[in-house]
Amino acid sequence: MDQKQLKKLLRQYRTGTRGDEELLTLLASHFSESVGFATIDHHREYRQGFPEVILCEGKTPKQVTEIAQRIVRHGSVLLATRATGKHYAAVRRHLSRAKYDEVGRTITANEHLVKPAGRGMILVVTAGTSDIPVAEEACTTARLMGNQVDRIFDVGVAGIHRILAHSEKLRNASVIVVVAGMEGALASVVGGLVRVPVIAVPTSIGYGASFGGVAALLGMLNSCAAGVTVVNIDNGFGAGFAASLINRST
Amino acid sequence: MDQKQLKKLLRQYRTGTRGDEELLTLLASHFSESVGFATIDHHREYRQGFPEVILCEGKTPKQVTEIAQRIVRHGSVLLATRATGKHYAAVRRHLSRAKYDEVGRTITANEHLVKPAGRGMILVVTAGTSDIPVAEEACTTARLMGNQVDRIFDVGVAGIHRILAHSEKLRNASVIVVVAGMEGALASVVGGLVRVPVIAVPTSIGYGASFGGVAALLGMLNSCAAGVTVVNIDNGFGAGFAASLINRST
Amino acid sequence: MDQKQLKKLLRQYRTGTRGDEELLTLLASHFSESVGFATIDHHREYRQGFPEVILCEGKTPKQVTEIAQRIVRHGSVLLATRATGKHYAAVRRHLSRAKYDEVGRTITANEHLVKPAGRGMILVVTAGTSDIPVAEEACTTARLMGNQVDRIFDVGVAGIHRILAHSEKLRNASVIVVVAGMEGALASVVGGLVRVPVIAVPTSIGYGASFGGVAALLGMLNSCAAGVTVVNIDNGFGAGFAASLINRST
Amino acid sequence: MDQKQLKKLLRQYRTGTRGDEELLTLLASHFSESVGFATIDHHREYRQGFPEVILCEGKTPKQVTEIAQRIVRHGSVLLATRATGKHYAAVRRHLSRAKYDEVGRTITANEHLVKPAGRGMILVVTAGTSDIPVAEEACTTARLMGNQVDRIFDVGVAGIHRILAHSEKLRNASVIVVVAGMEGALASVVGGLVRVPVIAVPTSIGYGASFGGVAALLGMLNSCAAGVTVVNIDNGFGAGFAASLINRST
Amino acid sequence: MDQKQLKKLLRQYRTGTRGDEELLTLLASHFSESVGFATIDHHREYRQGFPEVILCEGKTPKQVTEIAQRIVRHGSVLLATRATGKHYAAVRRHLSRAKYDEVGRTITANEHLVKPAGRGMILVVTAGTSDIPVAEEACTTARLMGNQVDRIFDVGVAGIHRILAHSEKLRNASVIVVVAGMEGALASVVGGLVRVPVIAVPTSIGYGASFGGVAALLGMLNSCAAGVTVVNIDNGFGAGFAASLINRST
Amino acid sequence: MDQKQLKKLLRQYRTGTRGDEELLTLLASHFSESVGFATIDHHREYRQGFPEVILCEGKTPKQVTEIAQRIVRHGSVLLATRATGKHYAAVRRHLSRAKYDEVGRTITANEHLVKPAGRGMILVVTAGTSDIPVAEEACTTARLMGNQVDRIFDVGVAGIHRILAHSEKLRNASVIVVVAGMEGALASVVGGLVRVPVIAVPTSIGYGASFGGVAALLGMLNSCAAGVTVVNIDNGFGAGFAASLINRST
Amino acid sequence: MDQKQLKKLLRQYRTGTRGDEELLTLLASHFSESVGFATIDHHREYRQGFPEVILCEGKTPKQVTEIAQRIVRHGSVLLATRATGKHYAAVRRHLSRAKYDEVGRTITANEHLVKPAGRGMILVVTAGTSDIPVAEEACTTARLMGNQVDRIFDVGVAGIHRILAHSEKLRNASVIVVVAGMEGALASVVGGLVRVPVIAVPTSIGYGASFGGVAALLGMLNSCAAGVTVVNIDNGFGAGFAASLINRST
Amino acid sequence: MDQKQLKKLLRQYRTGTRGDEELLTLLASHFSESVGFATIDHHREYRQGFPEVILCEGKTPKQVTEIAQRIVRHGSVLLATRATGKHYAAVRRHLSRAKYDEVGRTITANEHLVKPAGRGMILVVTAGTSDIPVAEEACTTARLMGNQVDRIFDVGVAGIHRILAHSEKLRNASVIVVVAGMEGALASVVGGLVRVPVIAVPTSIGYGASFGGVAALLGMLNSCAAGVTVVNIDNGFGAGFAASLINRST
Repeated sequence: MDQKQLKKLLRQYRTGTRGDEELLTLLASHFSESVGFATIDHHREYRQGFPEVILCEGKTPKQVTEIAQRIVRHGSVLLATRATGKHYAAVRRHLSRAKYDEVGRTITANEHLVKPAGRGMILVVTAGTSDIPVAEEACTTARLMGNQVDRIFDVGVAGIHRILAHSEKLRNASVIVVVAGMEGALASVVGGLVRVPVIAVPTSIGYGASFGGVAALLGMLNSCAAGVTVVNIDNGFGAGFAASLINRST
Repeated sequence: MDQKQLKKLLRQYRTGTRGDEELLTLLASHFSESVGFATIDHHREYRQGFPEVILCEGKTPKQVTEIAQRIVRHGSVLLATRATGKHYAAVRRHLSRAKYDEVGRTITANEHLVKPAGRGMILVVTAGTSDIPVAEEACTTARLMGNQVDRIFDVGVAGIHRILAHSEKLRNASVIVVVAGMEGALASVVGGLVRVPVIAVPTSIGYGASFGGVAALLGMLNSCAAGVTVVNIDNGFGAGFAASLINRST
Repeated sequence: MDQKQLKKLLRQYRTGTRGDEELLTLLASHFSESVGFATIDHHREYRQGFPEVILCEGKTPKQVTEIAQRIVRHGSVLLATRATGKHYAAVRRHLSRAKYDEVGRTITANEHLVKPAGRGMILVVTAGTSDIPVAEEACTTARLMGNQVDRIFDVGVAGIHRILAHSEKLRNASVIVVVAGMEGALASVVGGLVRVPVIAVPTSIGYGASFGGVAALLGMLNSCAAGVTVVNIDNGFGAGFAASLINRST
Repeated sequence: MDQKQLKKLLRQYRTGTRGDEELLTLLASHFSESVGFATIDHHREYRQGFPEVILCEGKTPKQVTEIAQRIVRHGSVLLATRATGKHYAAVRRHLSRAKYDEVGRTITANEHLVKPAGRGMILVVTAGTSDIPVAEEACTTARLMGNQVDRIFDVGVAGIHRILAHSEKLRNASVIVVVAGMEGALASVVGGLVRVPVIAVPTSIGYGASFGGVAALLGMLNSCAAGVTVVNIDNGFGAGFAASLINRST
Repeated sequence: MDQKQLKKLLRQYRTGTRGDEELLTLLASHFSESVGFATIDHHREYRQGFPEVILCEGKTPKQVTEIAQRIVRHGSVLLATRATGKHYAAVRRHLSRAKYDEVGRTITANEHLVKPAGRGMILVVTAGTSDIPVAEEACTTARLMGNQVDRIFDVGVAGIHRILAHSEKLRNASVIVVVAGMEGALASVVGGLVRVPVIAVPTSIGYGASFGGVAALLGMLNSCAAGVTVVNIDNGFGAGFAASLINRST
Repeated sequence: MDQKQLKKLLRQYRTGTRGDEELLTLLASHFSESVGFATIDHHREYRQGFPEVILCEGKTPKQVTEIAQRIVRHGSVLLATRATGKHYAAVRRHLSRAKYDEVGRTITANEHLVKPAGRGMILVVTAGTSDIPVAEEACTTARLMGNQVDRIFDVGVAGIHRILAHSEKLRNASVIVVVAGMEGALASVVGGLVRVPVIAVPTSIGYGASFGGVAALLGMLNSCAAGVTVVNIDNGFGAGFAASLINRST
Repeated sequence: MDQKQLKKLLRQYRTGTRGDEELLTLLASHFSESVGFATIDHHREYRQGFPEVILCEGKTPKQVTEIAQRIVRHGSVLLATRATGKHYAAVRRHLSRAKYDEVGRTITANEHLVKPAGRGMILVVTAGTSDIPVAEEACTTARLMGNQVDRIFDVGVAGIHRILAHSEKLRNASVIVVVAGMEGALASVVGGLVRVPVIAVPTSIGYGASFGGVAALLGMLNSCAAGVTVVNIDNGFGAGFAASLINRST
Repeated sequence: MDQKQLKKLLRQYRTGTRGDEELLTLLASHFSESVGFATIDHHREYRQGFPEVILCEGKTPKQVTEIAQRIVRHGSVLLATRATGKHYAAVRRHLSRAKYDEVGRTITANEHLVKPAGRGMILVVTAGTSDIPVAEEACTTARLMGNQVDRIFDVGVAGIHRILAHSEKLRNASVIVVVAGMEGALASVVGGLVRVPVIAVPTSIGYGASFGGVAALLGMLNSCAAGVTVVNIDNGFGAGFAASLINRST
């Protein structure tokens, strides 16, 4: 049900063609679908331009499969994040075309339904090799939301020439996602070099007093470079999603 | 010196018209200006599209004044944040046209030089009355970067109908800045209602276990609504700046 | 020994019918039972209206079994929380009618002894699917304390219409338990919608800077909605117990 | 506008007697009143049974006064918490009958409009003398919400007989608010003694590793006594409010 | 080498009977013994009245065995704490009379060499059943340092009568060790009841916001009862050791 | 009322010479005295051997004065800690013989009533000059509880010979209180040198990452020297009190 | 390519012998080598005097092997830290001469290429046996950077004579690395005894409130001994590296 | 008393020329001087090559003056840090030639006694203008310890070209002190550019989630650039001291 149908329905209600109960039933079935343990928010695609995404962490393989089936059946693009091999095995049994990316830990399906949405290029940069899984989660999210994605990996500030060598790529991007653990300084350096929005993703990479990503998170929140905004630790999905919203309007 | 002049200079160096020393002197004087206690980054306007902003906190009135004078003299728009009355008094003695906003604690000058840059509307929303100073810092920053700004104040989630009543304004914005203290839940609710980027600013408003804004910061970082990115506690300037970068390309 | 018998005993002591030693022995055996590693508080049922509950975490299957047997033998309702499959296997060997709920991880027995105690409906609401185990612990606790329980699951604030669609259930409840991880914003939204007590249970669901439930805990403690009180992270039992105390007097 | 009038209005809209614009204007003016820096939630009285309460902290005396006037003018009971002498001085200039409680730091007016709401007694207990200001905030809140309030002060657990001596008062209360700083152990002891809901308020009283009330907060959240729920540090208002909601239904 | 022999040696050095090298060699061999990965502090028995204790955590079974052998060979009482089954298996292979306490996780040997040292009774009290392992570590330590030890287990404050019922044991102790997790309130209650030193041991028992014992630790440090001192979380050994030092002088 | 009178009273009750009401009244008046804002625990002297001590922090000068008068009138030794000049000025107006120690911030009176209680010497050691105020609070407390007190000040571990030079004093003490800020290492060094109980008091002295005494507190809790117990940050009173309990039985 | 070749290349570019593209290609290939998931910083050896070191944590055995091969092929000394047995097994398959140190968890190769660089002795000291793995990581790092290394293990401050007995070794070192867990006090004591730089490495050894090394970290940062600098928790590599830089110039 | 005299004294004791008491008195008076509230460590100059430095924070002006006088009288260079104007006023009354640096807050005297000690240049770099006070404390410390000092101020990473423009100064330094607040990223960038030791000083400059310097501290501890060591927040003195120890041996 798109925005047009929705308006028609509301006009019918207003003019009395449809009654109270009828309206509520139709809206409810359109907006959300209850499967006992979950209330699937089909309305989200209408509100946000992208269907509900499944966070697999904390859900059983069976729960993930059931939600995934309904999203696919509803004719939406499927994206499930933080998926283990077990989640994928369960999903594939019912959705044989679903794909799994081991590095970024995402399950996807219906990718052929993706429509190009962003006008510019989303660039995903990492400080180290260990940050790549989080970066790939961001890349897959952005790709499924209809964006072109480019990558620069392992260019942390301890060798500042590594990132400086990519100045052209940096200049050409319309949004940049910087993924970094340890002290997270790469976000400040990139933020100071470009004139486009930079989304910083702290990762839990590091040891000792990195406190599972807190050091990088604080470093990014306190960035001396203006224009840097931050998402949760290891939240590649969130960064890819926000980057897509920004790029959509470019 | 704009990008064109810069390229010309480099070509002259390449062809031997200008020597090593000459090049470095010209570049250095263009890029940054040293005043002993500060290295003013005039190059920033070239890189980021907006001149260096003065963070008054931690600087003496005399230091702020000296930096402000050079920015104004360089023909740039002046924005100084976290300014006390004392900072303003000192600045006004040398820059009689400088203005002070007591609520948002900003000093501004050369505002007539601001060029319209953003294509859409930046909407700044607060959860409470006490969040307004931070919101005004964001508004002033966005305005000086050439954007149109709209406001909705005191619509926290304890009375959810207050924000729902503004659905049209929310829909029409191209970027939304949500300023909230306490548990910061407003960012999640707004993030779930719209399809544009939401920048969340936690404020230090609250008491007890709000820990000077940490509760709101964590709430916003863990927002269940995708597309929300976060800046530092009370960092209205950072939110206004990032919103401007996003809006510029809209 | 009920309150009446207790008073009689005390009067006998006062009049000299019973001596010091006799009184102490009778009271001690009534109040608590020592099994070496545990001092079972049979007096709790008298004081609080519900027998001691076994927290299995940190206890061996053998210890849990021994305590469970004595509670059942004493003619009380058995509730054991945070029980693993191993705990249950051990208990079942001696109490063949004991039941296990895998989701909420509770062992129960003597449920037929439960007397209806609450006058209203206790409503348990979760923000996500992953919060359900904690919610079920609350539900079982409330049910065993004699209450009627209703559920609404997976209605987090990122899709605010999901909770608004249940306004009637919310209005009809006499106490509401809100179970949420991540930023825990659902507690504030529900708290602002109703006029009955809301008990918020932060869960350890979330990642990165959710810090095992601290983000949700702080969010709930700082709720801008008055009337919300909070229990420990993942403490479904505590919420169910407090809700029962409130509902009992309704 | 009471619930009856509201329903009538909606029926008129349904039958076409009132148009879109008319409906929204009427509802908006009823629900909330905008004064620029604040959106007063008059609807709260309808939803929660008590009008909006002003948290003075973070608001200027002028802002507090303006909001207070509108609440009083709307015919509601006025409660303003965390008020300084300056706030009161400003309010009194326009609301000459407003009263100020220096200990609990509350401003009140229209108290004659309070209707008895609670059926039982709300008992407020403190561990020490220094906890009294927070306790008085709770007492005033409960009183203005139509409850009878009783007090026991300075009965911390270091002298356990002090609280045991009040067993009758404890038994007769319908809700108990325990206000304690330092280690906050009083909440656990009281929680273990009674069969009614206990609301624990940690206070920032203490020194060294009390961390402004964190020690007491954690102590209360981890209380080994079931039935204890917790509000924010120093949040006497929140405790009084929640206690009133509980007592209302008793 | 006891204090007398030591003094004689020093006098010989002073008078020239023994030279520099000879003195240093004798002292070094007496004071500490190097085994590459460890410098065994035999001098500790001289200084503190009890030989070095082996903390097994972080040491390999082989390392523990080697140190244990030297302590036993040196004719000292052996106490090894935090020992796993693997540590014990390795030790027993070389010290066949070594004993292992599975609950308290201690390995002991040469217990027949223990001399009665304390004049009074050391009483070890726990709040719950899960605190017993830590309590037993304290008991074993105190016993091996020559003290009489008594126990009261599972008498937490949620049922205050349980600890009050033991007033005689409390009165007769010369030092009391209180072992408690969760909010750790038992230390305050006991501290307020007695006139002897109380050593509080926070345990990591609890969940959610107990933060691995931090809640209990803070509760005990902020105890409103004077005379309570605190050791590290789960540090039964430290408490037993300090209690022994106190009791020794009784 | 001493222990003997108490027993007599109880026997009279048992034999019926005194009735219920009479007994309770007598006990209550003996045990505690209510002054509205405070419940003075006169029973404490009976239980703990020392009367209630007034913590002035968080109390008004008037409240302190009123409690002080009742303690003095009751014939007890007065000790008030954390007293400001204002507290003292108020107290002196009614208790002209009260004395004030500016360094340790204590008010004392009735010191002539102190009876020698401890058999050994309590030694108070500080790491630096800035730790002296906390040390003096401990000294005054110990002195008023009837102990002999000795001092060694400013002997931190950065110059290890300074503390080693005092080995005789260390050996002769029966309890040692170590007061140290910064990293608090002095407690470990002293603890390793002696065979008597060591009570460590972390102070809030230090800067940067000392976090108001947390660094010292953690250092002391994790002391590698057995026999060290810890009190709250800056809690000189607590250390002096615990040292007195230990020394009393020496 | 050494510094001389580099300068020649730049002169050729300046005189036009080499064009833009040619220069960039040559420089890029020299400076860094991209292997998709990693950008190997060969330039580091030029800038810092030591080739890139592989932090194995967070990298797959395959990734480590691929980077290791390129470093060895480039003719550099190989050092890989935090290597598990799996990492080593994979590396050895392609680099049969690579060695593994199980204690310090390092993989090394091409050690014959190491050139003596430091003039003095680097001394590595540990407080306990459990700190040895971290110490060995520091030793291997220093050795591979061309330094002589000496060790003193298990000389914590609880037996202060143990470290004092090594005064000669301490005096002869040119840099000292102190590795300690628990309260980390050894760094302060050593720092106060010597006149050379001391690098403190906090370890995660300890339990309870050591918080994975935070107690030691804070203790070392707050050291009362001047001249002590600190690296991350368990960061033996960082300490060995910094010590080498210092010793190199000795 | 220099090392030669000390050895002579010890030989005299060894041969019997001097007795026990005589030796101890001479050593004690040489090593430390007691002034009641302080034990001045004159021995420090012998051990560490620099006399005791006075940390004024936490000391009264009178205490500072008394210690300063004794240091000057002893013929040593005077350095007092964290001095307020009041401290200086008091010191100057007795030491008229003492000088005060308002920016770095240091009092100095006897500077003519400073002997050149370091062979290289110590370079102090700051990220911002507000970091200058801490930097000046480091500069003064290094200067008084006999070093040449150079400065680069306000070259934070948001404009990376600012620090790159100083590559020559960076290359010529023998030790570099990096002073930075906010995210502290400058330390990583500098650490990656040079081959000399880098000492990082986090400052408390920043706001919101900088937590008084914790963000910078964590950033620096987790620096991805090897060779960076860290001192306490705002500890310019510690950095200057450590840099001097390093430079001394260059």
